[in-house]
Amino acid sequence: MLDESPVTNLTDEQCWELLEANEFGRLAFHMAGEVHITPINYVVDQGRLIFRTAEGNKLLGMTMNHDVAFEIDQFTEDEAVSVVLRGSADTLEGDAAEFVDTLPLRPWVATTKLVVVAITPEEMSGRRFTLQRPWLHSRKD
Amino acid sequence: MLDESPVTNLTDEQCWELLEANEFGRLAFHMAGEVHITPINYVVDQGRLIFRTAEGNKLLGMTMNHDVAFEIDQFTEDEAVSVVLRGSADTLEGDAAEFVDTLPLRPWVATTKLVVVAITPEEMSGRRFTLQRPWLHSRKD
Repeated sequence: MLDESPVTNLTDEQCWELLEANEFGRLAFHMAGEVHITPINYVVDQGRLIFRTAEGNKLLGMTMNHDVAFEIDQFTEDEAVSVVLRGSADTLEGDAAEFVDTLPLRPWVATTKLVVVAITPEEMSGRRFTLQRPWLHSRKD
Repeated sequence: MLDESPVTNLTDEQCWELLEANEFGRLAFHMAGEVHITPINYVVDQGRLIFRTAEGNKLLGMTMNHDVAFEIDQFTEDEAVSVVLRGSADTLEGDAAEFVDTLPLRPWVATTKLVVVAITPEEMSGRRFTLQRPWLHSRKD
């Protein structure tokens, strides 16, 4: 049997399928020269990731520097997939923000988040990892 | 009944318990003025997060700018917890790196990762979110 690499790259199409199948990820952004990270819930629309946020540090940081990174992952005992993208985060206003009310962007937490932000990906990569976690399989041969 | 806030803060002790109970998180780091994010597996040792990496962009970015952020999360239908920390990432060498061989740092993926990095947290916060996802409970009253 050939040795197979434990890491394979996903196609862009596979990345979008995973992004569309999930609604929870992690956003990394700049703030005052520091890197910050926070969980968000999001929806995919027309090649962008849309999420809501409240006024605050996260929004301030993204307003000062639009450069962001975003990650989703999911895994089973034997396999993990991760999609990572980098892009620009921009606040939507007016009709563009109101249109988001029609999307299935479902807030997981009942806090007031009035600002709508769209991330436009500039780079994206997805990887599938074959996991070797023998401690989960100690009963197998 | 009093309205309860859907978000509560965790104590530092609760954050460490969650960090110790998990072994998979996401690292955000600087690279050439950009913010990047990647999944890693890690172990907690003496108030630091230890992980292995290969030579590459991630390591280069952290060597140029030690400022990093890290996140773990876990959730059920009704509740999510997330721990976020910021700190400094530093490569361990010599005895300090060899000592890591004694830790239960279990690589999930069988790729060669020879460099040992320690993240020393400078700020940490944890939050517990009460989730309102009625679409998961459409059968409940």
